[in-house]
Amino acid sequence: MSGATVLVTGGAGYVGSHSVVELLNQGFKVVVVDNLVNASSECLKRVEEITGKEVICILVDLCDKHGLDKVFTDHKIDCVIHFAALKAVGESVSVPLTYYRNNVGGTLTLLEVMKAHNVKKIVYSSSATVYGTPQTLPLTEDHPTGSGCTSPYGKSKYFVEQILMDLVKSDETWSAISLRYFNPVGAHESGKIGEDPKGIPNNIMPYIAQVAVGRRKDLKVFGNDYNTPDGTGVRDYVHIQDLATGHIAATNMILSPNFCGWKVYNLGTGSGLSVLQLVKAFEEASGQKVPCEIVGRRAGDIDASYADVSLAKKELQWQATKGVLDMCM
Amino acid sequence: MSGATVLVTGGAGYVGSHSVVELLNQGFKVVVVDNLVNASSECLKRVEEITGKEVICILVDLCDKHGLDKVFTDHKIDCVIHFAALKAVGESVSVPLTYYRNNVGGTLTLLEVMKAHNVKKIVYSSSATVYGTPQTLPLTEDHPTGSGCTSPYGKSKYFVEQILMDLVKSDETWSAISLRYFNPVGAHESGKIGEDPKGIPNNIMPYIAQVAVGRRKDLKVFGNDYNTPDGTGVRDYVHIQDLATGHIAATNMILSPNFCGWKVYNLGTGSGLSVLQLVKAFEEASGQKVPCEIVGRRAGDIDASYADVSLAKKELQWQATKGVLDMCM
Repeated sequence: MSGATVLVTGGAGYVGSHSVVELLNQGFKVVVVDNLVNASSECLKRVEEITGKEVICILVDLCDKHGLDKVFTDHKIDCVIHFAALKAVGESVSVPLTYYRNNVGGTLTLLEVMKAHNVKKIVYSSSATVYGTPQTLPLTEDHPTGSGCTSPYGKSKYFVEQILMDLVKSDETWSAISLRYFNPVGAHESGKIGEDPKGIPNNIMPYIAQVAVGRRKDLKVFGNDYNTPDGTGVRDYVHIQDLATGHIAATNMILSPNFCGWKVYNLGTGSGLSVLQLVKAFEEASGQKVPCEIVGRRAGDIDASYADVSLAKKELQWQATKGVLDMCM
Repeated sequence: MSGATVLVTGGAGYVGSHSVVELLNQGFKVVVVDNLVNASSECLKRVEEITGKEVICILVDLCDKHGLDKVFTDHKIDCVIHFAALKAVGESVSVPLTYYRNNVGGTLTLLEVMKAHNVKKIVYSSSATVYGTPQTLPLTEDHPTGSGCTSPYGKSKYFVEQILMDLVKSDETWSAISLRYFNPVGAHESGKIGEDPKGIPNNIMPYIAQVAVGRRKDLKVFGNDYNTPDGTGVRDYVHIQDLATGHIAATNMILSPNFCGWKVYNLGTGSGLSVLQLVKAFEEASGQKVPCEIVGRRAGDIDASYADVSLAKKELQWQATKGVLDMCM
């Protein structure tokens, strides 16, 4: 499918930019739309440096229907990878309307514009959050979703999955693949791009890195009384470059002539790691100490979450290749 | 609270117009916004005839943010009753994007405009559909919602409830009451307004009425092999004038100075009636025969659904007063 043009929403963000690198490396043409609310255009310059290829980046918000329409008029798009979303769980509890407008309203606008331009293939950036509290582990794609989502962020991911599923069901000329990420960490091997959020990081790895370089005093570990071997929360940390290749696999699948319908895949490693195990691995890899302070649990956090990855392996021919040490480099 | 100004979205529709009559009778000022997609302005003229009072009606779509903003600038609104929505379950399966845009996107726009104008009280027109297939009967307000919703219509009602709940949780200056209707039937006692949908009716009562007057040959009864006494589906039919007084009760509650937070109430009679019982009651009341043809089940239909109405009785001091014979008049 190399040669096809992929529109990447949120392509200047963390998962987006790493996937753009991989798309360019695989010979896809890429058009990025991003509102740069939680990203910077500098990131895409570095993507061009890494790949030696051009990225078209258009500053447009997904809620701006006219702006988005112009993008589809100006560029012949074959399929869309839809990353653009607000993603801070805690913030979503404080400003739910903003989250629902951006994540759900923005997606509706995107789908309407896609439909108007007869672009009906979409790969969606979902999250293991849609599973809520796991009833069984590892999490398989048929685990119930929705009812356990407690934050507006998680619900917005669930709502969009439902909208996509209903859309595909209503019209067989649409197809959609939802990729449920577990916990993305790490950075591109070039060191040129990575996760560098503005303000206080919401994810653990940039937080650990900021502690290691002295930008923050210590790592707050939210609870050590979870039902896990060392009491800290267990998650399935998946490397960002593995996530990027997962998106290539999904894009190839959705662009293949025989593909139709609605598919969901977990993107994870299949194994869980506790917060303290992650810290230890980081210390070993970097030689830097990471002081930790145990503080109270965060509302909504769960004991453990990790993926059953057999479906992605079987159907997407994808699996994570990087381990915990790669994530700490 | 009489004297307060209530903005009624979808006020020219079936439940909306009957509630507007009751609001006017109780001394509220009413501003209606309606896009008249599934309603007519004639209906509001009749509301004015019935009540002898003026209704301001503004033709605006809830997705039109600027138009809606002007309404709130031109009128000082104390609270909103939000009826406006597309409501045909079957159609929602065919055109899900249209339903999500109108019902979810439209509500987001309404809430954004309300927030901008510091109007933070909303009574929401929800549906027993949010319960999905009942796990227990009668349905209480704490019965699980969402996971059993199969149609985009039902999901859109569930999504909006979640959005309202999250909004109220995030900001205590908001308050919201969700009213979950069971099966609305009947017409105003004046005979001047009622349910007269364009095209093929989605609800049973106008269908029965059209058969009785000869506009349609017979009533299609969708399945007689349900797990109910006579095999036809059992529903809780609640009279439209009772629904209207339920909205007055909720409006008075939300406007009372001590009220805050998020509340949900079932609006039903508390008893179920089968399709064949409803037909028999109609025949007895009208003296007209209603020929029936048993056809296959409709996808998504359930055996039985009826409300536990004790919470509305206790907290809203509301209960249905009309029985099946009133519904057939």
